[in-house]
Amino acid sequence: MSTEQLAGFAAQLRFEHIPDTVVRKAEDLLVDWFGSALAGKGARPVESIVRFAEGMGGGAGPSEILVHRSGASPYLAAMANAAASHVAEQDDVHNGSVFHPATVVFPVALAAAQTLGASGARLLTAAVAGYEVGIRVGEFLGRSHYKVFHTTGTAGTLAAAATAGQLLGLDAAQMRHAFGSAGTQSAGLWEFLRTAADSKQLHTAHAAGAGLMSAWLARDGFTGAAQILEGPQGLAAGMSSDADPARLADGLGTRWATAETSFKFHASCRHTHPAADALLAVMREHRLQPADIAEVVTHVHQGAIDVLGPVVRPATVHQSKFSMGTVLALVARHGQAGLGEFDRHFQDPAVQALRERVRMELDAEVDQAYPRRWIGKVTVRTTDGRVLRGRVDEPKGDPGNTLSREEINAKALRLAEYSGAATAAEMRSALDRLWGIAQAPSVQRLMPAAA
Amino acid sequence: MSTEQLAGFAAQLRFEHIPDTVVRKAEDLLVDWFGSALAGKGARPVESIVRFAEGMGGGAGPSEILVHRSGASPYLAAMANAAASHVAEQDDVHNGSVFHPATVVFPVALAAAQTLGASGARLLTAAVAGYEVGIRVGEFLGRSHYKVFHTTGTAGTLAAAATAGQLLGLDAAQMRHAFGSAGTQSAGLWEFLRTAADSKQLHTAHAAGAGLMSAWLARDGFTGAAQILEGPQGLAAGMSSDADPARLADGLGTRWATAETSFKFHASCRHTHPAADALLAVMREHRLQPADIAEVVTHVHQGAIDVLGPVVRPATVHQSKFSMGTVLALVARHGQAGLGEFDRHFQDPAVQALRERVRMELDAEVDQAYPRRWIGKVTVRTTDGRVLRGRVDEPKGDPGNTLSREEINAKALRLAEYSGAATAAEMRSALDRLWGIAQAPSVQRLMPAAA
Repeated sequence: MSTEQLAGFAAQLRFEHIPDTVVRKAEDLLVDWFGSALAGKGARPVESIVRFAEGMGGGAGPSEILVHRSGASPYLAAMANAAASHVAEQDDVHNGSVFHPATVVFPVALAAAQTLGASGARLLTAAVAGYEVGIRVGEFLGRSHYKVFHTTGTAGTLAAAATAGQLLGLDAAQMRHAFGSAGTQSAGLWEFLRTAADSKQLHTAHAAGAGLMSAWLARDGFTGAAQILEGPQGLAAGMSSDADPARLADGLGTRWATAETSFKFHASCRHTHPAADALLAVMREHRLQPADIAEVVTHVHQGAIDVLGPVVRPATVHQSKFSMGTVLALVARHGQAGLGEFDRHFQDPAVQALRERVRMELDAEVDQAYPRRWIGKVTVRTTDGRVLRGRVDEPKGDPGNTLSREEINAKALRLAEYSGAATAAEMRSALDRLWGIAQAPSVQRLMPAAA
Repeated sequence: MSTEQLAGFAAQLRFEHIPDTVVRKAEDLLVDWFGSALAGKGARPVESIVRFAEGMGGGAGPSEILVHRSGASPYLAAMANAAASHVAEQDDVHNGSVFHPATVVFPVALAAAQTLGASGARLLTAAVAGYEVGIRVGEFLGRSHYKVFHTTGTAGTLAAAATAGQLLGLDAAQMRHAFGSAGTQSAGLWEFLRTAADSKQLHTAHAAGAGLMSAWLARDGFTGAAQILEGPQGLAAGMSSDADPARLADGLGTRWATAETSFKFHASCRHTHPAADALLAVMREHRLQPADIAEVVTHVHQGAIDVLGPVVRPATVHQSKFSMGTVLALVARHGQAGLGEFDRHFQDPAVQALRERVRMELDAEVDQAYPRRWIGKVTVRTTDGRVLRGRVDEPKGDPGNTLSREEINAKALRLAEYSGAATAAEMRSALDRLWGIAQAPSVQRLMPAAA
């Protein structure tokens, strides 16, 4: 019954059902995503996928490709924007599902809304449907899944289908068919991390495109499996050994998983954030300088070891965001690990030297709390022989330690400035419209059209 | 090393390397595929995917969508033609890999060749690369994979990437990147069979599109995992428990898996063919009439039970092609189970009654020979109490019991006539060009453009 319940929820959700606090959070997440989408401009893998989308039938259409200010069909625009919004590693994350919702949900919501002429309230409703679905699918697939699969790619197809399906007005039966088509296209393997390949951008593009396609096909009568998630030859049967079907309908309509989503502060893989914040805490408390650090042991959950473990000597900026040692060295030396710190400093000799003095150890308490809570624990040995411990229970950006709207705005402006995707004036105009989107009768272009 | 070897082979294959007999077989397979692609015209799931492709940026372009005679980008045309060519269940199959190569290889080969202006010899070379790669990936992924995954969808992304990559002239390193991008998009679950959903057409469309995209991206510098197939977080790690990396490079350049491919005679799931032919054999030998049959036990491999087992009371023509009982009832009553027999008779009361008297039993000998050999064994109990046994070692269409060029031509004409996709005159013209494609300086449209 689980796929059925989840699909029914996604189809029947209405703006009036969503608590105000959750609508406000959805607006926060939308603005935060917009900055990440613009940040992708100029990144080589992003530009490749955008060129592909434009060359394969895009280049004109009602949905905008943000980084090129071009138009395309919703399918190709969603792929392009999804590729763009995951590369800076600044997009949001839901802890319990280890799933990055924004990068697969909002590209679809924006592209579909622009093509369909939908209102801003419908865009937000669709986004909440996508978050609630994708997060529960991620939780359902469990830790065994995440050991091999990039959950944002796999659960992402369902999130994208829910988003597009909600905007298309699919009924519950059609939504279930859309889920069937989306789940049978779920894909995304971590293997690419080993050689710092570009697949992360492909995974989000794929999830957004496949999910949107599934919803469009369902509207046209195309059918999918009835129990794609929990069935005996479904997603969990093929790609998980600890799936829990009870998670799929967990608190539907009362527990708003959207509101549990965390913003990213550091521009790195989320698995590095708890330790980074814990190191900052211990350095502040004991007024340590980077030169005082002889060794850092980060006490982590197994998922961190699975994802970050293969990255020993990061060769690219993007790979360095998956290097625990690099991230800790950057925060130790610069107080934060933002886009600029990675670009300018990830190969500094001092950063490399400190990187080599950081190691990960599996920690029973941290591992048990994960993925519901992402506890940061570090042990620092100083050059003068002291052993100091640091801890944070909620890394910066988590719901209990969240970003203010001023911080979200500032982050979006920083990201657009970083990539050169928009001027400050263009950003102010777009951000004004985004903060007021709940009142917009239809979703218009966010960027001026290309000259 | 295995992904590397396979990618190197796919990149470096040249027309001159391919033995004449294999080139002739590739021509046979191309013509056989063409008939299946046309047979999809008018099928509801096919038309949905074609409409999607046309609506999302297709409708004009250098690659033809065969069933609509429209043009599109190679990406969207490949998706549309791949959706079309698997629905009649008449496309080819490679026994050892349980993989249907034509439906994911030729749509990509045709679409890419038409856009790139490639010669017919290059199209054939690319198709052989696709067959050799896809078949080996299917063999590598093994039986555990096929229990849950539709290998044509999963291995199909690699086959499609090899095909497109060969036509794009990728070097070995680029081809490996294309494989990485293709493998990380591999998807396709059997769950849809349980409710007779449309996913099979989506799987082939997805594989063709994702594979072609991967090759196009690789030409543009986009990178993929180096060991997507055998790596610790690669395709086999996530989606197989009995993968054998030795199969990936098995006999590359000396063993031509393309030539091992079987044509389909009956218009049903290949798992039904050995038993169907064995039943025909015993009926012929003992001059049985359908009314003489009290019960048929088919002695099958486990894969047949996995795929056909869920289909108990077929509700649609397509689902009935996965019903062992229906297929055997049709061949018992009509001498064959072709498209017309399914359409007109799958719900005849006499067919349904006979269907209920057919059951499957796992057979040790058959299961052990599978998937290398697909042995057909049946035990028939007659109404007058005799127990008769029938056996075929190579079902009709296998390399040792293959179709002649006349039979292939006749089959293609039947398929086009069945769907109304082309007149006999149009078919004669297209078939003439296809049989002579090795000499064509460039691949032209096969069908007249839509009026």
